[in-house]
Amino acid sequence: MNILKVNMTEGNIESMPVPQDKALGGRGMIDYLMTEYGSATAHPLSPEALFVAAIGILGGSSAPNVHRISVGGKSPLTGGIKEANAGGVAGQKLGRLGIQALMVEGKSDEWKILKLNAEGASLEPAGEIVGLKNYAACDKLRQRYGDKVGIIIIGPAGEMKMCNSSVAVTDPEGRPARHCGRGGVGAIMGAKGLKAVVIDDSDGELRKPVNEEAFKAAVKDCAEAIRTGDFTEAFHTFGTPMFIDGDNERGSLPTYNHRQGSFEDEKRNKINANALQETNKARVGNTGCGHTCMPGCVIQCSPIFYDQGGSYVTSGFEYETIAMFGPNLGVDDLDAIARMDRACDEIGLDTIETGCTIGLLNDARLFEFGDAARAEALIEEIAQGTELGRIIGSGTANAAKVFGIDRVPAVKGQGIPAHAARSSKGWAIAYTSSPQGADHTAGVVLDEPLSKEGQVERGRQSQILMTAFDCTGLCMFTFLGDAFGLLTSMINALTGTNLSEEDYVQMGKDALKQERAFNLKAGIGPEADRLPDWMRTEPLPPTNEVFDVPQDEIDDFWNF
Amino acid sequence: MNILKVNMTEGNIESMPVPQDKALGGRGMIDYLMTEYGSATAHPLSPEALFVAAIGILGGSSAPNVHRISVGGKSPLTGGIKEANAGGVAGQKLGRLGIQALMVEGKSDEWKILKLNAEGASLEPAGEIVGLKNYAACDKLRQRYGDKVGIIIIGPAGEMKMCNSSVAVTDPEGRPARHCGRGGVGAIMGAKGLKAVVIDDSDGELRKPVNEEAFKAAVKDCAEAIRTGDFTEAFHTFGTPMFIDGDNERGSLPTYNHRQGSFEDEKRNKINANALQETNKARVGNTGCGHTCMPGCVIQCSPIFYDQGGSYVTSGFEYETIAMFGPNLGVDDLDAIARMDRACDEIGLDTIETGCTIGLLNDARLFEFGDAARAEALIEEIAQGTELGRIIGSGTANAAKVFGIDRVPAVKGQGIPAHAARSSKGWAIAYTSSPQGADHTAGVVLDEPLSKEGQVERGRQSQILMTAFDCTGLCMFTFLGDAFGLLTSMINALTGTNLSEEDYVQMGKDALKQERAFNLKAGIGPEADRLPDWMRTEPLPPTNEVFDVPQDEIDDFWNF
Repeated sequence: MNILKVNMTEGNIESMPVPQDKALGGRGMIDYLMTEYGSATAHPLSPEALFVAAIGILGGSSAPNVHRISVGGKSPLTGGIKEANAGGVAGQKLGRLGIQALMVEGKSDEWKILKLNAEGASLEPAGEIVGLKNYAACDKLRQRYGDKVGIIIIGPAGEMKMCNSSVAVTDPEGRPARHCGRGGVGAIMGAKGLKAVVIDDSDGELRKPVNEEAFKAAVKDCAEAIRTGDFTEAFHTFGTPMFIDGDNERGSLPTYNHRQGSFEDEKRNKINANALQETNKARVGNTGCGHTCMPGCVIQCSPIFYDQGGSYVTSGFEYETIAMFGPNLGVDDLDAIARMDRACDEIGLDTIETGCTIGLLNDARLFEFGDAARAEALIEEIAQGTELGRIIGSGTANAAKVFGIDRVPAVKGQGIPAHAARSSKGWAIAYTSSPQGADHTAGVVLDEPLSKEGQVERGRQSQILMTAFDCTGLCMFTFLGDAFGLLTSMINALTGTNLSEEDYVQMGKDALKQERAFNLKAGIGPEADRLPDWMRTEPLPPTNEVFDVPQDEIDDFWNF
Repeated sequence: MNILKVNMTEGNIESMPVPQDKALGGRGMIDYLMTEYGSATAHPLSPEALFVAAIGILGGSSAPNVHRISVGGKSPLTGGIKEANAGGVAGQKLGRLGIQALMVEGKSDEWKILKLNAEGASLEPAGEIVGLKNYAACDKLRQRYGDKVGIIIIGPAGEMKMCNSSVAVTDPEGRPARHCGRGGVGAIMGAKGLKAVVIDDSDGELRKPVNEEAFKAAVKDCAEAIRTGDFTEAFHTFGTPMFIDGDNERGSLPTYNHRQGSFEDEKRNKINANALQETNKARVGNTGCGHTCMPGCVIQCSPIFYDQGGSYVTSGFEYETIAMFGPNLGVDDLDAIARMDRACDEIGLDTIETGCTIGLLNDARLFEFGDAARAEALIEEIAQGTELGRIIGSGTANAAKVFGIDRVPAVKGQGIPAHAARSSKGWAIAYTSSPQGADHTAGVVLDEPLSKEGQVERGRQSQILMTAFDCTGLCMFTFLGDAFGLLTSMINALTGTNLSEEDYVQMGKDALKQERAFNLKAGIGPEADRLPDWMRTEPLPPTNEVFDVPQDEIDDFWNF
């Protein structure tokens, strides 16, 4: 497997082998390349900065659920290191071309497409796709490069180098609906002058395991473990929208700009998983759930949403999106929420950050809760790059600075996602201490959500395991993060490494500490590991909890 | 002398004596109060944050040039501690009322005036002055409170809590032309709901020295030292605009958004000190120079500018303002530059940050160099609080985030002032390491400006002495920063302390380290002590120097 080094200034592309002395993939590959080749002090959008895309250690193999792709670099939103991952088809296709990672440096003055196939790699003028929204751009790219290509692409937000821009990856139907969302990764890619990566793997091939028999056996065990997993059926049937009721029940569903932890029942019932399914059934005769976001998925949990005429609106219509555009904006109109999701997919925006920012605008009297039309109009302002649109597109913390707002739901500049910190105290440890900023995937903790006891230790273990897991390419909804034996069996058989279970956990620790070290070099001090002060004093109904995990315990997070 | 503690939420005002165990004033008082009573983690605009105004240790006495006033708190621009000082009449008047400092906490929902006189202190509704620009607001306040009052006030920018808002202080003619400019101090005051402080000292009295004879003698020596100082005559005659030619000669006059270090001769000659004097002479028969900005000033260096009809436009028309609105914007129209200065004084904006931000907008194609009318229109956008105005009013670094610009002339979020770092390398040490962000008053170093040798040590000494000096209330243009004996004689005789020269220097060290400690607690790491990377690679004509002081030497700055 190789790392493709693309210099956008020179137009050069070189290949170098993945170092053999360690297992490198996904998030860990980004951490490794940023540490070895990146700069912690360069501006995230400067030619000296790097944009990295990396498949997981298991990516491109025949293992199930392993084709997630990570992209990252230095975040223009947080100023720290950033990894964001998504499903879609790109991960598998890169793997089939023997490409473990793309490391993009420099800056092209003219927008480019990076074309990858079995013959090699080349940079081509982006031409007429510049300025297009993602769906139309992908249609045009398929006209140019063939129906079967996989696409990694930025929308207008990434072109405008907005701090809240995403990198989209096409799903099996070619829809740019899977997004590496957080931290402005679209701007990092955009700052290179790279509009899209087009991957034609038609002459590529599945990765050959070093130990075929052992790999086959491990893969079989893995598939079985996923298939029989406790949550697989629920995810397949309802998808992540099922968390609307779950978080609401727990009092951790961000509502009205993080001012409540639950949404009024009559409103919630219009936007929860049941409403989504019933709406779809009435319109197209099926629930819309159970769609596959990436090849080889055993779970198939992605929901699609259809409009009143039965036409496709959006897919990857996930919990965080529904929560941040629904309850957090006081909106109970599922059609409007779905259109907002689609608009963000088109523009190349992180739905979490966008919902968080629009909610904040209530404090600036620029948005009234429940006004879905206004929310949609504000998203269109982002697309147009109006001054207000640029403010919103710069994310929650920046918008707060521009409007002089002091109640800012963000950590390290990144908006707080859809599991309320005050009533999910273990989960909030990830928001405080993750080098990625407030990130719900950095370390999930559900135990005793209202207790302040033991949360730092839980959060630490969860973050270490999640970081390791983010290296593999596996989807977190397989819930195999602590199935160490299964994971090391697959990795060792595929790559010829000899990882012990301890080595695997150590990989997570090392990557996490590499991220932390990067941030310290970038000028982000240890004391940035904290929630905003107001979350310690403003109770969140209905639990009326404040965040009360002692800060000195959190400051001890990194002692491992 | 007392510290007045004002709780805006409760409407309570309490008085507490200045601690007797240490000399406390100006910048050191802010550092002390922020450390003892402030919060490093609270949002700068939250009720938990403090706004502090403090006169110098010598303020309110009969010593010459000692009535500068410091205001500060936690900066919404940098996220760190902030002190900004100015002349004007407020310092002396506070001192005559026995008030060493105001410490304002909480938040009033209704805009208030803090009225201070010999009878006491009270909070009154601001009424119709809310929303007014500074000159008109001061006129109205004098109608209400009498002609002789001194005023500390925020303009519309501070009311809108902009990161680049100033606190204005009226000069002897009652003009709100002296500004505590940097770091968004206007927003800190605005966030309290405090529109203005009105000081009526008519029944107050000059501070009585503990040792009258000794004080009288020391004051006499001090006045003589200032009167005979090497630069006093030049300052009195030409004012700070004389630096236009000086910095240009050195190649350190920021021109075209920090892309050159000198301005074309034919343009420079239209905006330098000579041009200013000749223009004024032709219009009103005098140079406009030699105005007094604060009572008891021996130097009298403030320039006034008159329009073609001979009417007053602005005073305190200083070098930094002319450089940042002139060469840095490619503008060679002194009338336009003076109007911009006046507009900033009216709106309550830091001219340095404003000029730096508008220059940056050239990279976003929102401003063409030399287009003075556009620059004026952009400043009016700030006044109106339009979306673009709010972006500009949020300062250089924030505007860069909003527009996706990677070449950002800022340190710790604060725009780089008008002595180019690359060709004033010793001075730039202050920009890198000052806890205040890029600040030209934090530590002036002129020796061997193009050499990288010995600059950190020079910068360290300069910063320590400047920090101590900023505690005294004295104006830096007295050039008495290292006249330790003179300073301690006055301080000891006035206050009854027994400061040695070493104690005095230690006061500077302690205050500086207090500021640093505050910033670390606020999440600003040691590695934030650096110029932007591009200043190390992009040569600055005409010297074609890059900033090349080794970063490891800078990182050693705090070892004292």
